[in-house]
Amino acid sequence: MTWIHTQLQLKPRPRGFHLVTDEILAQLPELKPLRVGLLHLFIQHTSASLTLNENADPTVREDFEGHFNRMVPENPSRYRHTDEGPDDMPAHIKSSLLDSALSIPIHNGRLALGTWQGIYLCEHRNDGGSRRLIATIHGEKT
Amino acid sequence: MTWIHTQLQLKPRPRGFHLVTDEILAQLPELKPLRVGLLHLFIQHTSASLTLNENADPTVREDFEGHFNRMVPENPSRYRHTDEGPDDMPAHIKSSLLDSALSIPIHNGRLALGTWQGIYLCEHRNDGGSRRLIATIHGEKT
Amino acid sequence: MTWIHTQLQLKPRPRGFHLVTDEILAQLPELKPLRVGLLHLFIQHTSASLTLNENADPTVREDFEGHFNRMVPENPSRYRHTDEGPDDMPAHIKSSLLDSALSIPIHNGRLALGTWQGIYLCEHRNDGGSRRLIATIHGEKT
Repeated sequence: MTWIHTQLQLKPRPRGFHLVTDEILAQLPELKPLRVGLLHLFIQHTSASLTLNENADPTVREDFEGHFNRMVPENPSRYRHTDEGPDDMPAHIKSSLLDSALSIPIHNGRLALGTWQGIYLCEHRNDGGSRRLIATIHGEKT
Repeated sequence: MTWIHTQLQLKPRPRGFHLVTDEILAQLPELKPLRVGLLHLFIQHTSASLTLNENADPTVREDFEGHFNRMVPENPSRYRHTDEGPDDMPAHIKSSLLDSALSIPIHNGRLALGTWQGIYLCEHRNDGGSRRLIATIHGEKT
Repeated sequence: MTWIHTQLQLKPRPRGFHLVTDEILAQLPELKPLRVGLLHLFIQHTSASLTLNENADPTVREDFEGHFNRMVPENPSRYRHTDEGPDDMPAHIKSSLLDSALSIPIHNGRLALGTWQGIYLCEHRNDGGSRRLIATIHGEKT
């Protein structure tokens, strides 16, 4: 049995949906020896989130940003929590609609993602800065 | 400690929300010997998803389909990613609003679901075909 | 390796979003000896849910309630499943949009939450009563 915690830091990104599979995998050489297991990714913030979605066409990520802005509009008259700017309360709501964590199977040292699945960092603030993740790797070695 | 990966194949279903608890359990005899553990179900697609909800009244699943179609409308003028048809981009968004994975406690060889909880396959494409899941079972035997 | 299941009971709360981190931690002394691990919280209901979000300003929770009521309106003409009252079908939808489970890393005997992260019980029924959770703790002792 292997249990590992690692802290990952994602570089700052503008508001929007960003494909970060490669940036995350580059920081997780510990996956390699595992025959079977799970990778748990956890973002320690309440205004950015993680999801899995289409990894090929960049317009998918643009359409995500457009949809979430329509579904959770920046309309200060709707909210009481407005001190940190009009993008703040919508960012909190978007991050709970998506998720603060992902669990992905590990199979023979690699993530068992489908062909079209990639990891998105969903940055909901205009200026969110670098984001911190805790990666928990657990499983069985070969 | 037990760690098992199994690949499950769900039969093709029309667009909509479908109760699949029994179809999944029939493929997981490995749950039986576990005293305590977790079942992780992971769908390897970006246009179908998994969720837990009411397992008795079929109109609940119809109301889910109606609500998600209103909340994520098939309006091509809203999206740039439209090459694969008007149901494609909404399917990506719905699958991230719901989830690509579920973790359910295993207790004395059975899933510790509440009385009214069942596993839904949420098929967001008009013609999604058979869907592939990875089941990860880990826990302790009696 | 440690594997523990505990059943938690949350006291009844009115409809809305409620910070329950302390109520949950008070029932989980078993976290303390773990050096590394994961806490899995699972709600055994289909009309209440769990999420992580801002733990300081109570108006954030009020804005959540307002947003979810707009996004999933209590409009009986939209739904077929209406026998249990106008708040029932929206409660099912809200609970799948948020989530029935949370996984949080355990590090040196404590939850590795970010500074601003707290656990919300999202009570979507007008009169939901006490809610039952299964906590699964697994990890490695020091």
